[in-house]
Amino acid sequence: MADREKLRSDLVALLGADSVAWDPESLAKHSRDSWPLAILRAVHRRPAETPACVVQPRDTESVSRTLRYASEHQVPVVPYGGGSGVCGGILPPEDAVVVDLRKMNRVLEIDERALLVRVQAGALGAELEKTLNEKGFSCGHFPQSIDLSTVGGWVATRSAGQFSTRYGSIEDILAALEVVLPAGTVVRTKPVPRAATGPDLREIFLGSEGTLGIVTEATLRILPKPPSRVLAAFAFPALARGLEAIRQLVQAGWRPPVLRLYDELETARHFSDWAAPETALLLVLSEGPPALTEAEMAACSAACAAERGSALGPAPVEHWLEHRNDVPPLEPFFERGIVVDTIEVAAPWSAIPALYEGVAAGLRAVPGILVASAHSSHSYVTGTNLYFTFAVQTENPDRAEEIYHQCWAAAMEATLAAGGTISHHHGIGRIRRPWMAQEHGLGIGVLRALKAALDPQGIMNPGVLLP
Amino acid sequence: MADREKLRSDLVALLGADSVAWDPESLAKHSRDSWPLAILRAVHRRPAETPACVVQPRDTESVSRTLRYASEHQVPVVPYGGGSGVCGGILPPEDAVVVDLRKMNRVLEIDERALLVRVQAGALGAELEKTLNEKGFSCGHFPQSIDLSTVGGWVATRSAGQFSTRYGSIEDILAALEVVLPAGTVVRTKPVPRAATGPDLREIFLGSEGTLGIVTEATLRILPKPPSRVLAAFAFPALARGLEAIRQLVQAGWRPPVLRLYDELETARHFSDWAAPETALLLVLSEGPPALTEAEMAACSAACAAERGSALGPAPVEHWLEHRNDVPPLEPFFERGIVVDTIEVAAPWSAIPALYEGVAAGLRAVPGILVASAHSSHSYVTGTNLYFTFAVQTENPDRAEEIYHQCWAAAMEATLAAGGTISHHHGIGRIRRPWMAQEHGLGIGVLRALKAALDPQGIMNPGVLLP
Repeated sequence: MADREKLRSDLVALLGADSVAWDPESLAKHSRDSWPLAILRAVHRRPAETPACVVQPRDTESVSRTLRYASEHQVPVVPYGGGSGVCGGILPPEDAVVVDLRKMNRVLEIDERALLVRVQAGALGAELEKTLNEKGFSCGHFPQSIDLSTVGGWVATRSAGQFSTRYGSIEDILAALEVVLPAGTVVRTKPVPRAATGPDLREIFLGSEGTLGIVTEATLRILPKPPSRVLAAFAFPALARGLEAIRQLVQAGWRPPVLRLYDELETARHFSDWAAPETALLLVLSEGPPALTEAEMAACSAACAAERGSALGPAPVEHWLEHRNDVPPLEPFFERGIVVDTIEVAAPWSAIPALYEGVAAGLRAVPGILVASAHSSHSYVTGTNLYFTFAVQTENPDRAEEIYHQCWAAAMEATLAAGGTISHHHGIGRIRRPWMAQEHGLGIGVLRALKAALDPQGIMNPGVLLP
Repeated sequence: MADREKLRSDLVALLGADSVAWDPESLAKHSRDSWPLAILRAVHRRPAETPACVVQPRDTESVSRTLRYASEHQVPVVPYGGGSGVCGGILPPEDAVVVDLRKMNRVLEIDERALLVRVQAGALGAELEKTLNEKGFSCGHFPQSIDLSTVGGWVATRSAGQFSTRYGSIEDILAALEVVLPAGTVVRTKPVPRAATGPDLREIFLGSEGTLGIVTEATLRILPKPPSRVLAAFAFPALARGLEAIRQLVQAGWRPPVLRLYDELETARHFSDWAAPETALLLVLSEGPPALTEAEMAACSAACAAERGSALGPAPVEHWLEHRNDVPPLEPFFERGIVVDTIEVAAPWSAIPALYEGVAAGLRAVPGILVASAHSSHSYVTGTNLYFTFAVQTENPDRAEEIYHQCWAAAMEATLAAGGTISHHHGIGRIRRPWMAQEHGLGIGVLRALKAALDPQGIMNPGVLLP
């Protein structure tokens, strides 16, 4: 406790009293992210530990000072953005400093000629998008968390948005970054369109989940708001038919921003007003120059018809657009003994049938299973993702956590067995860490070497990412 | 010399006599790549040192054994693909082992459903493309060196092809790789379409130029051969007009594989049969589904007309397609006292006018300059590349090397001053190494830490990439 006092007073001396907080509310707020297991534990009156204090820097220099201090004193540091992570990336130990970036939320510069925006890492996605929209631009990056997640969080977790099939994921959108290394060094990369100047420094930090440094600024590629948008939905007699239509479309070179296909269970759950029972619903959204959207939608209609998809018109897509970011709070489920979560994975097209069947079967083997369903929301030439939802009823609240881990283990093992990757866009955090060695094979040694090289004292977000 | 003998006999014992060569022809062939300065030195009777021996492994296990041996005995190792590099990436010291990958050139597997090809690193681009074409596929990656360069070389140097504006560069095409680390460990990544499982291991080795390990296998994204192709050329009253047309097209969402714009000098040099003097010629090639190419070419015509580009029909593009990989041998130039090379750089659109003017002015200030011209061949939403050609006449052969360095320094300094990147796709090698610290700022420390972590003894391709 004496250490905590000293840490707090040192940081106040270093950064000013208004940049350091340790009131119970601040500590509790920064004690976890939106990981369902952390929420479950809170419901069961087993809340997470609270950190020693929360630093709220207003500039990169303050982040640098904080990290230099932490390095010198071997204090664990946990970067905090919007707290929207769902894999347990934030669970600061009692002796940790949380660095909350939310006060660094300014849009610094828009280059309208090169279509680049430079923004501080703590800006919320929705704040940035609003600023861009007012000038006729968009980021084209729409994770479901956009109202809650920060630009820095997107980078640190390798975020993907709902329109990624055309506009790419954060690694395609991030043109440059500023990152503070554990010893306080500030590294800035240049926003060039492409370079062959050694390994790409952006990629070291994309997906590093706070374990290699703190992202303080990002330069993102933006786009003019598209002049036209067309919506269409199609119902297929089976999920496999819809997947085949998507594969044909993307492999022929079409890239509608949204190609979102629900299995029969999710179609019945969310779209029964439009789709017949036992069908799989595909949502298509195309946008861009009218000549492009027209040709693209004609190609979609033909590809869907070839797989016996029947056209349902735009209404299901409009419904989805309106409700796409509604996420019900999890507490009521946990209070009723229902263990729920989502798990997103991905694989090459040739492995997708086995991946779907394997994960669904694994989840359905869990006693008390109520729901095991999936949709595909991000497609590529070589494969697609599957986003599973599970719910399990338990009579015994003491078993909830065990059941939670049981579901995750079933999904992870089945994914690896099918040749898939254990995460498409939520990241690793703590929940997926036990499978990282299997995911990467001997490559895990390269990740460990990188960690040891950049954070030799291991102060950055300990307990996350690497097993 | 005793060391050389021991090294050779040890490697023969380890790999077999038919995998190790040290005849003068083999040593001379592997003593350099296609770096113009190395060619200039050879013309001036100052050939490069020759390595101790050349290993020609037939499998990954042999590469692993070689590297394990080299690590244990601190022997420098230089990986060798097709020898097509133009930046001095290959210049083995006398005590080095060159690992020539050309005998590892098999196409191992084609996944026609996921559109993936798994190929050994020593396959030449043209060999791979021919195999794919026979099955109705293409890699979509066409560097000018395709007849001379290997798949492993593409990865190690961050290659970009002539059709990259639509199909991407090697970092977009590489789905997975196998790489042998300096101590002999074989790391394999999985060919998944996208993952959020920590920093992307592919990106550690893309552009590493043999300094972190040896790439032994690659899985690449392939494409069905496109059903239609349309060609068109346009002549603009000024380079700036043509650049503006390209910028408008890509920022509106169009991606013709080829958008290739020559400045007035290069237009006069290569296309005087079609384009009027003092015009800048744009070559456009669109391919894909007919509905897409039709809409794309209509958009191109409109964007070019808006910038006063006049349509010249397909002939200039056909001419380029036929001759695009013809590169004249450099020896005759050097023998006549003409110092020549090309320098490719890139920048955001907002910096391109200053970059073009700055580099051209810097080159034209070199006494004896004959040619300083450029074209743009790879465009992106946020910017484009500029590919300069220079030629300088000198009466004194002893000054040729100094003049060569003077031209490079002028181009590099002007590029950095304009906010550009010092290499778009040729890489760093030895010629650009002096500017790497300026290119990356404090980020150079991250690259150095990566090198120290993965190659602590510094045996991998010493003298390249990092200053």
